[in-house]
Amino acid sequence: MSLTKESIAEWFKSLQDDICNGLESLDRTGKFKEDKWTRPEGGGGRSRVITNGQVIEKGGVNFSAVEGPTPQKILDALKLPEADFFASGVSIVLHPNSPMTPIIHMNVRYFEMSDDTYWFGGGIDLTPHYVVKDDAKRFHEYLKDTCDKYDPEYYPKFKKWADDYFFIKHRDETRGIGGIFFDRLKEDDTHSKEDIWEFVKAVGKTFVPAYSEMVNRSKTIEFGEAEKAWQYHRRGRYVEFNLVWDKGTKFGLDTNGRTESILMSLPPQANWTYQHQVETNSREAETLSLLKKDIDWVNA
Amino acid sequence: MSLTKESIAEWFKSLQDDICNGLESLDRTGKFKEDKWTRPEGGGGRSRVITNGQVIEKGGVNFSAVEGPTPQKILDALKLPEADFFASGVSIVLHPNSPMTPIIHMNVRYFEMSDDTYWFGGGIDLTPHYVVKDDAKRFHEYLKDTCDKYDPEYYPKFKKWADDYFFIKHRDETRGIGGIFFDRLKEDDTHSKEDIWEFVKAVGKTFVPAYSEMVNRSKTIEFGEAEKAWQYHRRGRYVEFNLVWDKGTKFGLDTNGRTESILMSLPPQANWTYQHQVETNSREAETLSLLKKDIDWVNA
Repeated sequence: MSLTKESIAEWFKSLQDDICNGLESLDRTGKFKEDKWTRPEGGGGRSRVITNGQVIEKGGVNFSAVEGPTPQKILDALKLPEADFFASGVSIVLHPNSPMTPIIHMNVRYFEMSDDTYWFGGGIDLTPHYVVKDDAKRFHEYLKDTCDKYDPEYYPKFKKWADDYFFIKHRDETRGIGGIFFDRLKEDDTHSKEDIWEFVKAVGKTFVPAYSEMVNRSKTIEFGEAEKAWQYHRRGRYVEFNLVWDKGTKFGLDTNGRTESILMSLPPQANWTYQHQVETNSREAETLSLLKKDIDWVNA
Repeated sequence: MSLTKESIAEWFKSLQDDICNGLESLDRTGKFKEDKWTRPEGGGGRSRVITNGQVIEKGGVNFSAVEGPTPQKILDALKLPEADFFASGVSIVLHPNSPMTPIIHMNVRYFEMSDDTYWFGGGIDLTPHYVVKDDAKRFHEYLKDTCDKYDPEYYPKFKKWADDYFFIKHRDETRGIGGIFFDRLKEDDTHSKEDIWEFVKAVGKTFVPAYSEMVNRSKTIEFGEAEKAWQYHRRGRYVEFNLVWDKGTKFGLDTNGRTESILMSLPPQANWTYQHQVETNSREAETLSLLKKDIDWVNA
Protein backbone atom coordinates (compact mmCIF):
# COMPACT_ATOMS: atom_id res chain seq x y z
CA MET A 1 0.00 0.00 0.00
CA SER A 2 1.40 3.35 -0.96
CA LEU A 3 1.85 5.95 1.75
CA THR A 4 -1.14 8.24 1.27
CA LYS A 5 -2.63 10.57 3.83
CA GLU A 6 -5.65 8.28 3.94
CA SER A 7 -3.52 5.25 4.81
CA ILE A 8 -1.68 7.22 7.48
CA ALA A 9 -4.96 8.32 9.07
CA GLU A 10 -6.28 4.74 8.92
CA TRP A 11 -3.23 3.49 10.75
CA PHE A 12 -3.59 6.20 13.43
CA LYS A 13 -7.20 5.08 13.87
CA SER A 14 -6.09 1.50 14.38
CA LEU A 15 -3.43 2.72 16.82
CA GLN A 16 -6.15 4.46 18.82
CA ASP A 17 -8.11 1.18 18.89
CA ASP A 18 -5.08 -0.83 19.98
CA ILE A 19 -4.11 1.62 22.69
CA CYS A 20 -7.64 1.85 24.07
CA ASN A 21 -7.84 -1.95 24.17
CA GLY A 22 -4.44 -2.17 25.80
CA LEU A 23 -5.34 0.42 28.41
CA GLU A 24 -8.67 -1.22 29.22
CA SER A 25 -6.83 -4.49 29.82
CA LEU A 26 -4.31 -2.68 32.00
CA ASP A 27 -6.95 -0.82 33.94
CA ARG A 28 -9.31 -3.83 34.29
CA THR A 29 -12.41 -1.80 35.25
CA GLY A 30 -12.33 1.48 33.30
CA LYS A 31 -13.95 1.68 29.86
CA PHE A 32 -13.48 4.32 27.19
CA LYS A 33 -16.43 6.46 26.14
CA GLU A 34 -16.28 7.75 22.58
CA ASP A 35 -17.41 11.05 21.09
CA LYS A 36 -17.24 11.42 17.34
CA TRP A 37 -17.03 14.99 16.09
CA THR A 38 -16.76 16.76 12.78
CA ARG A 39 -15.08 20.02 11.97
CA PRO A 40 -17.12 22.52 9.94
CA GLU A 41 -14.12 23.29 7.68
CA GLY A 42 -13.39 19.60 7.04
CA GLY A 43 -12.55 16.34 8.78
CA GLY A 44 -13.16 15.38 12.37
CA GLY A 45 -12.16 12.96 15.05
CA ARG A 46 -12.91 10.36 17.69
CA SER A 47 -12.30 11.49 21.26
CA ARG A 48 -12.16 8.68 23.77
CA VAL A 49 -12.14 9.34 27.47
CA ILE A 50 -11.81 6.97 30.41
CA THR A 51 -12.76 8.06 33.93
CA ASN A 52 -12.68 6.53 37.38
CA GLY A 53 -10.95 3.33 36.36
CA GLN A 54 -8.91 1.21 38.74
CA VAL A 55 -5.63 2.65 37.46
CA ILE A 56 -6.67 5.70 35.44
CA GLU A 57 -8.64 8.45 37.13
CA LYS A 58 -9.05 10.54 33.96
CA GLY A 59 -7.51 10.04 30.58
CA GLY A 60 -8.07 10.67 26.91
CA VAL A 61 -6.93 8.88 23.76
CA ASN A 62 -7.88 11.11 20.84
CA PHE A 63 -7.72 10.50 17.13
CA SER A 64 -8.30 13.24 14.58
CA ALA A 65 -7.90 13.78 10.86
CA VAL A 66 -8.73 17.32 9.82
CA GLU A 67 -8.35 19.17 6.54
CA GLY A 68 -9.28 22.36 4.76
CA PRO A 69 -7.79 25.80 4.17
CA THR A 70 -4.70 26.21 6.35
CA PRO A 71 -5.49 28.52 9.31
CA GLN A 72 -3.81 31.91 8.90
CA LYS A 73 -1.91 31.43 12.17
CA ILE A 74 -0.13 28.34 10.79
CA LEU A 75 0.67 30.07 7.52
CA ASP A 76 2.13 33.04 9.42
CA ALA A 77 4.10 30.87 11.82
CA LEU A 78 5.56 28.77 9.03
CA LYS A 79 5.86 31.64 6.54
CA LEU A 80 3.93 29.66 3.96
CA PRO A 81 1.64 30.84 1.17
CA GLU A 82 -2.09 30.08 1.25
CA ALA A 83 -2.78 26.36 0.78
CA ASP A 84 -4.96 23.52 1.99
CA PHE A 85 -3.69 21.27 4.75
CA PHE A 86 -4.31 17.82 6.15
CA ALA A 87 -3.38 16.85 9.71
CA SER A 88 -3.91 13.56 11.49
CA GLY A 89 -2.67 12.05 14.70
CA VAL A 90 -3.25 10.42 18.05
CA SER A 91 -2.90 12.31 21.34
CA ILE A 92 -2.96 10.81 24.80
CA VAL A 93 -2.79 12.08 28.36
CA LEU A 94 -3.51 9.80 31.31
CA HIS A 95 -3.88 10.91 34.93
CA PRO A 96 -3.70 7.88 37.22
CA ASN A 97 -5.44 7.54 40.59
CA SER A 98 -2.28 6.64 42.43
CA PRO A 99 0.27 9.37 43.14
CA MET A 100 2.87 6.59 42.87
CA THR A 101 1.99 6.05 39.19
CA PRO A 102 3.23 8.63 36.67
CA ILE A 103 1.13 10.80 34.37
CA ILE A 104 1.90 9.95 30.75
CA HIS A 105 1.54 11.82 27.48
CA MET A 106 2.02 10.71 23.89
CA ASN A 107 1.39 12.32 20.55
CA VAL A 108 2.12 11.10 17.04
CA ARG A 109 1.08 13.22 14.09
CA TYR A 110 1.32 13.82 10.36
CA PHE A 111 0.90 17.14 8.59
CA GLU A 112 0.62 17.69 4.85
CA MET A 113 -0.02 20.72 2.64
CA SER A 114 -1.52 20.55 -0.80
CA ASP A 115 1.78 21.65 -2.30
CA ASP A 116 3.45 18.40 -1.14
CA THR A 117 5.07 19.86 1.94
CA TYR A 118 4.69 17.30 4.74
CA TRP A 119 6.21 16.29 8.04
CA PHE A 120 5.82 13.94 10.96
CA GLY A 121 6.00 14.87 14.61
CA GLY A 122 5.49 13.26 17.95
CA GLY A 123 6.72 12.48 21.38
CA ILE A 124 6.21 10.55 24.59
CA ASP A 125 7.02 11.89 28.01
CA LEU A 126 6.50 10.74 31.56
CA THR A 127 5.56 12.90 34.55
CA PRO A 128 6.02 10.94 37.77
CA HIS A 129 4.61 12.62 40.86
CA TYR A 130 7.53 10.92 42.62
CA VAL A 131 10.59 10.37 40.45
CA VAL A 132 11.99 6.85 40.87
CA LYS A 133 15.37 6.60 39.16
CA ASP A 134 15.05 2.95 38.14
CA ASP A 135 11.68 3.59 36.53
CA ALA A 136 12.95 6.67 34.72
CA LYS A 137 15.90 4.64 33.41
CA ARG A 138 13.59 1.82 32.26
CA PHE A 139 11.22 4.26 30.53
CA HIS A 140 14.06 5.92 28.66
CA GLU A 141 15.47 2.51 27.70
CA TYR A 142 12.16 1.71 26.00
CA LEU A 143 12.37 4.93 24.01
CA LYS A 144 16.06 4.52 23.19
CA ASP A 145 15.48 0.95 21.98
CA THR A 146 12.67 2.15 19.72
CA CYS A 147 14.73 5.04 18.36
CA ASP A 148 17.93 3.04 17.88
CA LYS A 149 16.23 0.65 15.46
CA TYR A 150 15.78 3.55 13.05
CA ASP A 151 18.68 5.90 13.65
CA PRO A 152 21.25 5.96 16.47
CA GLU A 153 21.14 9.74 16.41
CA TYR A 154 17.39 9.89 17.08
CA TYR A 155 17.38 9.14 20.80
CA PRO A 156 20.02 11.66 21.94
CA LYS A 157 18.56 14.34 19.68
CA PHE A 158 14.91 13.73 20.53
CA LYS A 159 15.64 13.23 24.24
CA LYS A 160 17.25 16.67 24.38
CA TRP A 161 14.34 18.12 22.39
CA ALA A 162 11.92 16.72 24.99
CA ASP A 163 13.96 18.22 27.85
CA ASP A 164 13.75 21.61 26.15
CA TYR A 165 10.11 21.30 25.14
CA PHE A 166 8.56 19.90 28.33
CA PHE A 167 10.04 22.66 30.44
CA ILE A 168 8.08 24.91 32.80
CA LYS A 169 10.10 28.06 32.30
CA HIS A 170 8.44 30.12 35.04
CA ARG A 171 9.18 27.36 37.58
CA ASP A 172 12.62 26.58 36.19
CA GLU A 173 11.77 22.87 36.26
CA THR A 174 11.02 20.17 33.71
CA ARG A 175 7.47 18.82 33.60
CA GLY A 176 8.72 15.35 34.51
CA ILE A 177 11.54 13.06 33.44
CA GLY A 178 11.05 13.86 29.76
CA GLY A 179 11.18 11.27 27.03
CA ILE A 180 11.41 12.04 23.33
CA PHE A 181 10.02 14.86 21.20
CA PHE A 182 10.43 15.48 17.47
CA ASP A 183 8.82 17.70 14.86
CA ARG A 184 9.11 18.63 11.17
CA LEU A 185 10.63 15.20 10.44
CA LYS A 186 10.75 14.43 6.73
CA GLU A 187 12.81 12.53 4.19
CA ASP A 188 16.48 13.34 3.82
CA ASP A 189 19.60 11.70 2.38
CA THR A 190 19.41 8.74 4.72
CA HIS A 191 15.68 8.33 5.46
CA SER A 192 12.80 7.93 3.05
CA LYS A 193 9.30 9.07 3.92
CA GLU A 194 8.49 5.39 4.49
CA ASP A 195 11.41 5.00 6.92
CA ILE A 196 10.17 7.90 9.01
CA TRP A 197 6.64 6.58 8.97
CA GLU A 198 7.90 3.22 10.26
CA PHE A 199 9.67 5.07 13.07
CA VAL A 200 6.54 7.06 13.98
CA LYS A 201 4.52 3.83 14.02
CA ALA A 202 7.11 2.23 16.29
CA VAL A 203 6.85 5.16 18.71
CA GLY A 204 3.07 4.69 18.77
CA LYS A 205 3.45 1.00 19.50
CA THR A 206 5.88 1.63 22.35
CA PHE A 207 3.19 3.39 24.35
CA VAL A 208 1.22 0.49 25.82
CA PRO A 209 4.14 -1.74 26.87
CA ALA A 210 6.12 1.20 28.27
CA TYR A 211 3.24 2.59 30.30
CA SER A 212 2.07 -0.86 31.39
CA GLU A 213 5.46 -1.48 32.91
CA MET A 214 5.33 1.87 34.71
CA VAL A 215 1.88 1.03 36.08
CA ASN A 216 2.86 -2.48 37.13
CA ARG A 217 5.96 -1.20 38.91
CA SER A 218 3.97 1.30 40.93
CA LYS A 219 0.43 0.09 41.39
CA THR A 220 0.90 -1.83 44.64
CA ILE A 221 2.86 0.91 46.39
CA GLU A 222 0.85 2.24 49.31
CA PHE A 223 0.15 5.91 49.77
CA GLY A 224 -1.81 8.23 52.04
CA GLU A 225 -3.08 11.77 52.33
CA ALA A 226 0.36 13.35 52.09
CA GLU A 227 1.07 11.63 48.78
CA LYS A 228 -2.36 12.59 47.41
CA ALA A 229 -1.75 16.24 48.38
CA TRP A 230 1.59 16.14 46.57
CA GLN A 231 -0.12 14.61 43.51
CA TYR A 232 -2.67 17.46 43.39
CA HIS A 233 0.16 19.95 43.72
CA ARG A 234 2.17 18.36 40.89
CA ARG A 235 -0.95 18.22 38.73
CA GLY A 236 -1.13 22.00 39.19
CA ARG A 237 2.27 22.23 37.53
CA TYR A 238 0.97 20.01 34.72
CA VAL A 239 -1.90 22.45 34.18
CA GLU A 240 0.56 25.35 34.15
CA PHE A 241 2.70 23.71 31.48
CA ASN A 242 -0.22 22.76 29.28
CA LEU A 243 -2.02 26.10 29.43
CA VAL A 244 0.99 28.44 29.44
CA TRP A 245 3.69 26.73 27.36
CA ASP A 246 2.37 23.82 25.33
CA LYS A 247 2.34 24.91 21.72
CA GLY A 248 -0.20 22.28 20.65
CA THR A 249 -2.72 23.38 23.28
CA LYS A 250 -2.18 27.05 22.55
CA PHE A 251 -2.52 26.50 18.84
CA GLY A 252 -5.65 24.38 19.20
CA LEU A 253 -7.37 26.95 21.42
CA ASP A 254 -6.27 29.82 19.17
CA THR A 255 -7.67 28.22 16.04
CA ASN A 256 -11.04 27.10 17.39
CA GLY A 257 -10.12 23.45 17.83
CA ARG A 258 -12.50 21.19 19.77
CA THR A 259 -11.94 22.55 23.28
CA GLU A 260 -13.10 19.45 25.15
CA SER A 261 -10.69 17.25 23.19
CA ILE A 262 -7.76 19.62 23.59
CA LEU A 263 -8.34 20.10 27.32
CA MET A 264 -8.89 16.42 28.09
CA SER A 265 -5.22 16.73 29.13
CA LEU A 266 -6.22 18.63 32.29
CA PRO A 267 -6.33 16.60 35.50
CA PRO A 268 -9.55 15.78 37.36
CA GLN A 269 -8.28 17.84 40.30
CA ALA A 270 -5.35 20.18 40.85
CA ASN A 271 -4.38 22.28 43.86
CA TRP A 272 -2.31 25.41 44.30
CA THR A 273 -0.61 26.51 47.51
CA TYR A 274 1.19 29.84 47.74
CA GLN A 275 4.92 29.28 48.29
CA HIS A 276 4.60 25.51 48.53
CA GLN A 277 7.50 24.09 50.55
CA VAL A 278 8.85 20.55 50.80
CA GLU A 279 10.73 19.03 53.71
CA THR A 280 14.50 18.73 53.38
CA ASN A 281 15.58 15.22 52.37
CA SER A 282 11.99 14.14 51.69
CA ARG A 283 10.96 12.17 48.60
CA GLU A 284 9.25 15.34 47.41
CA ALA A 285 12.54 17.26 47.69
CA GLU A 286 14.34 14.47 45.84
CA THR A 287 11.76 14.65 43.04
CA LEU A 288 12.25 18.41 42.72
CA SER A 289 16.00 17.91 42.52
CA LEU A 290 15.47 15.58 39.55
CA LEU A 291 13.18 17.85 37.52
CA LYS A 292 16.15 19.10 35.51
CA LYS A 293 17.20 19.02 31.90
CA ASP A 294 20.07 16.87 30.63
CA ILE A 295 19.90 13.98 33.08
CA ASP A 296 21.27 10.91 31.31
CA TRP A 297 18.57 8.55 32.57
CA VAL A 298 19.66 5.53 30.53
CA ASN A 299 23.07 5.57 32.20
CA ALA A 300 21.91 6.93 35.55
CA MET B 1 2.24 67.24 46.60
CA SER B 2 3.20 66.97 42.96
CA LEU B 3 2.31 63.80 41.11
CA THR B 4 5.61 61.92 40.99
CA LYS B 5 6.07 58.21 40.45
CA GLU B 6 7.23 57.98 44.05
CA SER B 7 4.04 59.56 45.34
CA ILE B 8 1.96 57.25 43.15
CA ALA B 9 3.77 54.18 44.48
CA GLU B 10 3.38 55.44 48.06
CA TRP B 11 -0.34 55.78 47.57
CA PHE B 12 -0.59 52.26 46.10
CA LYS B 13 1.26 50.99 49.16
CA SER B 14 -1.24 52.69 51.45
CA LEU B 15 -4.06 51.25 49.35
CA GLN B 16 -2.62 47.77 49.90
CA ASP B 17 -2.57 48.46 53.65
CA ASP B 18 -6.14 49.74 53.66
CA ILE B 19 -7.45 46.84 51.60
CA CYS B 20 -5.68 44.24 53.74
CA ASN B 21 -7.11 45.84 56.88
CA GLY B 22 -10.54 46.00 55.32
CA LEU B 23 -10.41 42.36 54.24
CA GLU B 24 -9.18 41.16 57.64
CA SER B 25 -12.13 42.93 59.25
CA LEU B 26 -14.48 41.37 56.70
CA ASP B 27 -13.00 37.91 57.11
CA ARG B 28 -12.74 38.10 60.92
CA THR B 29 -10.32 35.16 61.31
CA GLY B 30 -7.92 35.22 58.33
CA LYS B 31 -4.69 37.22 58.55
CA PHE B 32 -2.40 38.30 55.72
CA LYS B 33 1.14 36.98 55.59
CA GLU B 34 3.64 39.25 53.87
CA ASP B 35 6.62 38.45 51.65
CA LYS B 36 8.86 41.32 50.63
CA TRP B 37 10.84 40.74 47.46
CA THR B 38 13.29 42.66 45.34
CA ARG B 39 13.87 42.46 41.63
CA PRO B 40 17.49 42.08 40.50
CA GLU B 41 17.00 44.69 37.77
CA GLY B 42 15.41 47.21 40.15
CA GLY B 43 12.50 47.69 42.53
CA GLY B 44 10.44 45.04 44.27
CA GLY B 45 7.20 44.43 46.06
CA ARG B 46 5.17 43.24 48.99
CA SER B 47 3.09 40.13 48.35
CA ARG B 48 0.40 39.50 50.93
CA VAL B 49 -1.52 36.27 51.02
CA ILE B 50 -4.43 35.18 53.19
CA THR B 51 -5.38 31.51 53.48
CA ASN B 52 -8.09 29.52 55.23
CA GLY B 53 -9.95 32.49 56.59
CA GLN B 54 -13.62 32.39 57.47
CA VAL B 55 -14.63 34.04 54.19
CA ILE B 56 -11.50 33.81 52.04
CA GLU B 57 -10.00 30.41 51.32
CA LYS B 58 -7.03 31.81 49.37
CA GLY B 59 -6.33 35.33 48.27
CA GLY B 60 -3.54 37.72 47.48
CA VAL B 61 -3.21 41.50 47.68
CA ASN B 62 0.05 42.41 46.01
CA PHE B 63 1.88 45.70 45.76
CA SER B 64 4.87 46.21 43.48
CA ALA B 65 6.99 49.08 42.20
CA VAL B 66 9.59 47.93 39.69
CA GLU B 67 11.96 49.81 37.45
CA GLY B 68 14.95 49.40 35.17
CA PRO B 69 15.59 48.86 31.49
CA THR B 70 12.29 48.16 29.71
CA PRO B 71 12.03 44.43 28.85
CA GLN B 72 12.44 43.86 25.11
CA LYS B 73 8.99 42.23 24.93
CA ILE B 74 7.31 45.46 26.09
CA LEU B 75 9.35 47.57 23.69
CA ASP B 76 8.40 45.26 20.82
CA ALA B 77 4.73 45.14 21.79
CA LEU B 78 4.51 48.92 22.12
CA LYS B 79 6.89 49.67 19.26
CA LEU B 80 8.96 51.89 21.51
CA PRO B 81 12.69 52.64 21.47
CA GLU B 82 14.96 51.44 24.26
CA ALA B 83 14.26 53.27 27.52
CA ASP B 84 13.96 52.76 31.25
CA PHE B 85 10.56 52.11 32.76
CA PHE B 86 8.80 52.35 36.09
CA ALA B 87 5.67 50.36 36.91
CA SER B 88 3.70 50.26 40.11
CA GLY B 89 0.33 48.89 41.14
CA VAL B 90 -1.86 46.77 43.35
CA SER B 91 -3.28 43.42 42.21
CA ILE B 92 -5.87 41.35 44.01
CA VAL B 93 -7.56 38.01 43.52
CA LEU B 94 -9.69 36.43 46.25
CA HIS B 95 -11.11 32.91 46.20
CA PRO B 96 -13.78 32.57 48.88
CA ASN B 97 -14.66 29.37 50.73
CA SER B 98 -18.33 29.57 49.91
CA PRO B 99 -19.46 28.77 46.37
CA MET B 100 -22.24 31.29 47.01
CA THR B 101 -19.68 34.11 47.34
CA PRO B 102 -18.05 35.42 44.13
CA ILE B 103 -14.37 35.39 43.25
CA ILE B 104 -13.12 38.97 42.85
CA HIS B 105 -10.21 40.55 41.03
CA MET B 106 -8.89 44.09 41.02
CA ASN B 107 -5.84 45.75 39.55
CA VAL B 108 -4.78 49.40 39.49
CA ARG B 109 -1.49 50.33 37.92
CA TYR B 110 0.76 53.10 36.67
CA PHE B 111 3.42 52.80 33.98
CA GLU B 112 6.03 55.40 33.09
CA MET B 113 8.97 55.49 30.69
CA SER B 114 11.98 57.70 31.14
CA ASP B 115 10.95 59.68 28.06
CA ASP B 116 7.80 60.94 29.85
CA THR B 117 5.45 58.46 28.25
CA TYR B 118 3.04 57.28 30.96
CA TRP B 119 -0.35 55.74 31.45
CA PHE B 120 -2.72 54.35 34.02
CA GLY B 121 -4.61 51.11 33.82
CA GLY B 122 -6.85 49.00 35.97
CA GLY B 123 -10.03 47.12 36.45
CA ILE B 124 -12.31 45.28 38.81
CA ASP B 125 -14.35 42.26 37.85
CA LEU B 126 -16.53 39.78 39.67
CA THR B 127 -16.77 36.03 39.02
CA PRO B 128 -19.75 34.58 40.85
CA HIS B 129 -19.90 30.78 40.87
CA TYR B 130 -23.67 31.35 40.81
CA VAL B 131 -24.78 34.52 39.08
CA VAL B 132 -27.41 36.38 41.13
CA LYS B 133 -28.91 39.18 39.06
CA ASP B 134 -29.52 41.56 41.96
CA ASP B 135 -25.94 41.19 43.14
CA ALA B 136 -24.55 41.72 39.66
CA LYS B 137 -26.65 44.86 39.33
CA ARG B 138 -25.48 46.15 42.72
CA PHE B 139 -21.83 45.47 41.86
CA HIS B 140 -22.08 47.31 38.57
CA GLU B 141 -23.87 50.21 40.28
CA TYR B 142 -20.85 50.62 42.56
CA LEU B 143 -18.56 50.79 39.55
CA LYS B 144 -20.85 53.09 37.58
CA ASP B 145 -21.15 55.48 40.53
CA THR B 146 -17.37 55.59 40.85
CA CYS B 147 -16.88 56.17 37.13
CA ASP B 148 -19.65 58.73 36.75
CA LYS B 149 -17.98 61.08 39.23
CA TYR B 150 -15.10 61.48 36.78
CA ASP B 151 -16.57 61.06 33.31
CA PRO B 152 -20.03 59.82 32.26
CA GLU B 153 -18.39 58.07 29.31
CA TYR B 154 -16.08 55.97 31.50
CA TYR B 155 -18.55 53.36 32.74
CA PRO B 156 -20.08 52.33 29.39
CA LYS B 157 -16.67 52.32 27.74
CA PHE B 158 -14.82 50.47 30.50
CA LYS B 159 -17.72 48.06 31.10
CA LYS B 160 -17.56 46.99 27.46
CA TRP B 161 -13.77 46.75 27.67
CA ALA B 162 -14.13 44.37 30.64
CA ASP B 163 -16.65 42.22 28.74
CA ASP B 164 -14.18 41.91 25.89
CA TYR B 165 -11.12 41.39 28.10
CA PHE B 166 -12.45 38.91 30.66
CA PHE B 167 -13.65 36.55 27.96
CA ILE B 168 -12.75 32.85 27.73
CA LYS B 169 -12.63 32.58 23.98
CA HIS B 170 -12.24 28.80 23.79
CA ARG B 171 -15.35 28.36 25.97
CA ASP B 172 -17.28 31.20 24.34
CA GLU B 173 -18.20 32.52 27.77
CA THR B 174 -17.24 35.49 29.93
CA ARG B 175 -15.21 34.80 33.06
CA GLY B 176 -17.99 36.18 35.22
CA ILE B 177 -20.28 39.20 35.20
CA GLY B 178 -17.46 41.56 34.24
CA GLY B 179 -16.96 44.98 35.74
CA ILE B 180 -14.67 47.66 34.37
CA PHE B 181 -11.32 47.48 32.60
CA PHE B 182 -9.17 50.31 31.23
CA ASP B 183 -5.63 50.70 29.97
CA ARG B 184 -3.32 53.34 28.44
CA LEU B 185 -5.32 56.08 30.14
CA LYS B 186 -3.54 59.44 30.05
CA GLU B 187 -4.27 63.16 29.92
CA ASP B 188 -6.32 64.52 27.05
CA ASP B 189 -8.32 67.66 26.28
CA THR B 190 -10.74 67.11 29.14
CA HIS B 191 -8.71 65.24 31.77
CA SER B 192 -5.41 66.18 33.36
CA LYS B 193 -3.00 63.58 34.66
CA GLU B 194 -4.21 64.52 38.15
CA ASP B 195 -7.85 63.92 37.15
CA ILE B 196 -7.04 60.45 35.95
CA TRP B 197 -5.05 59.67 39.05
CA GLU B 198 -8.03 60.70 41.18
CA PHE B 199 -10.19 58.32 39.16
CA VAL B 200 -7.72 55.45 39.58
CA LYS B 201 -7.61 56.09 43.33
CA ALA B 202 -11.40 56.08 43.46
CA VAL B 203 -11.46 52.70 41.70
CA GLY B 204 -9.02 51.37 44.30
CA LYS B 205 -11.17 52.65 47.13
CA THR B 206 -14.32 51.06 45.69
CA PHE B 207 -12.89 47.59 46.20
CA VAL B 208 -13.50 47.00 49.91
CA PRO B 209 -17.07 48.35 50.14
CA ALA B 210 -18.12 46.66 46.88
CA TYR B 211 -16.72 43.25 47.83
CA SER B 212 -17.91 43.53 51.43
CA GLU B 213 -21.43 43.97 50.19
CA MET B 214 -21.06 40.94 47.91
CA VAL B 215 -19.78 38.87 50.84
CA ASN B 216 -22.48 40.06 53.23
CA ARG B 217 -25.20 39.30 50.70
CA SER B 218 -23.98 35.73 50.23
CA LYS B 219 -22.23 34.52 53.34
CA THR B 220 -25.23 33.05 55.13
CA ILE B 221 -26.56 31.15 52.10
CA GLU B 222 -26.33 27.42 52.73
CA PHE B 223 -24.64 25.08 50.32
CA GLY B 224 -23.67 21.42 50.01
CA GLU B 225 -21.52 19.03 47.99
CA ALA B 226 -23.19 19.87 44.67
CA GLU B 227 -22.43 23.57 45.06
CA LYS B 228 -18.82 22.84 46.09
CA ALA B 229 -18.38 20.62 43.00
CA TRP B 230 -19.70 23.43 40.82
CA GLN B 231 -17.32 25.88 42.51
CA TYR B 232 -14.31 23.65 41.73
CA HIS B 233 -15.52 23.35 38.16
CA ARG B 234 -15.91 27.13 37.75
CA ARG B 235 -12.50 27.67 39.33
CA GLY B 236 -11.14 25.47 36.53
CA ARG B 237 -12.48 28.04 34.07
CA TYR B 238 -10.80 30.78 36.10
CA VAL B 239 -7.49 28.93 35.77
CA GLU B 240 -8.06 28.59 32.03
CA PHE B 241 -8.66 32.31 31.62
CA ASN B 242 -5.67 33.34 33.71
CA LEU B 243 -3.17 30.96 32.14
CA VAL B 244 -4.37 31.07 28.53
CA TRP B 245 -5.75 34.57 27.94
CA ASP B 246 -4.77 37.00 30.68
CA LYS B 247 -2.20 39.36 29.21
CA GLY B 248 -0.81 40.40 32.59
CA THR B 249 -0.15 36.82 33.65
CA LYS B 250 1.36 35.91 30.30
CA PHE B 251 3.56 38.97 30.31
CA GLY B 252 4.72 38.41 33.88
CA LEU B 253 5.65 34.77 33.24
CA ASP B 254 7.32 35.66 29.94
CA THR B 255 9.52 38.33 31.49
CA ASN B 256 10.65 36.46 34.59
CA GLY B 257 8.30 38.17 37.01
CA ARG B 258 7.94 36.74 40.52
CA THR B 259 6.03 33.54 39.71
CA GLU B 260 4.52 33.03 43.17
CA SER B 261 3.10 36.57 43.18
CA ILE B 262 1.74 36.30 39.64
CA LEU B 263 0.15 32.91 40.23
CA MET B 264 -1.37 33.79 43.60
CA SER B 265 -4.44 34.28 41.38
CA LEU B 266 -4.84 30.51 41.00
CA PRO B 267 -7.44 28.85 43.23
CA PRO B 268 -6.59 26.48 46.08
CA GLN B 269 -8.38 23.68 44.21
CA ALA B 270 -9.86 23.33 40.73
CA ASN B 271 -11.47 20.36 39.01
CA TRP B 272 -11.95 19.37 35.38
CA THR B 273 -14.60 17.00 34.07
CA TYR B 274 -14.69 16.00 30.42
CA GLN B 275 -17.88 17.30 28.76
CA HIS B 276 -19.27 18.73 31.97
CA GLN B 277 -23.07 18.95 31.75
CA VAL B 278 -25.56 20.91 33.79
CA GLU B 279 -29.21 20.06 34.39
CA THR B 280 -31.79 21.96 32.37
CA ASN B 281 -33.37 24.82 34.34
CA SER B 282 -30.85 24.43 37.17
CA ARG B 283 -29.11 27.38 38.83
CA GLU B 284 -25.94 26.18 37.11
CA ALA B 285 -27.65 26.36 33.71
CA GLU B 286 -28.94 29.83 34.56
CA THR B 287 -25.42 30.95 35.44
CA LEU B 288 -24.08 29.67 32.12
CA SER B 289 -26.82 31.55 30.29
CA LEU B 290 -25.63 34.77 31.95
CA LEU B 291 -21.93 34.42 31.14
CA LYS B 292 -22.35 36.61 28.07
CA LYS B 293 -21.01 39.93 26.91
CA ASP B 294 -23.13 43.07 26.71
CA ILE B 295 -25.61 42.39 29.51
CA ASP B 296 -26.75 45.77 30.84
CA TRP B 297 -26.52 44.79 34.51
CA VAL B 298 -27.30 48.23 35.92
CA ASN B 299 -30.67 48.25 34.17
CA ALA B 300 -31.29 44.50 34.35
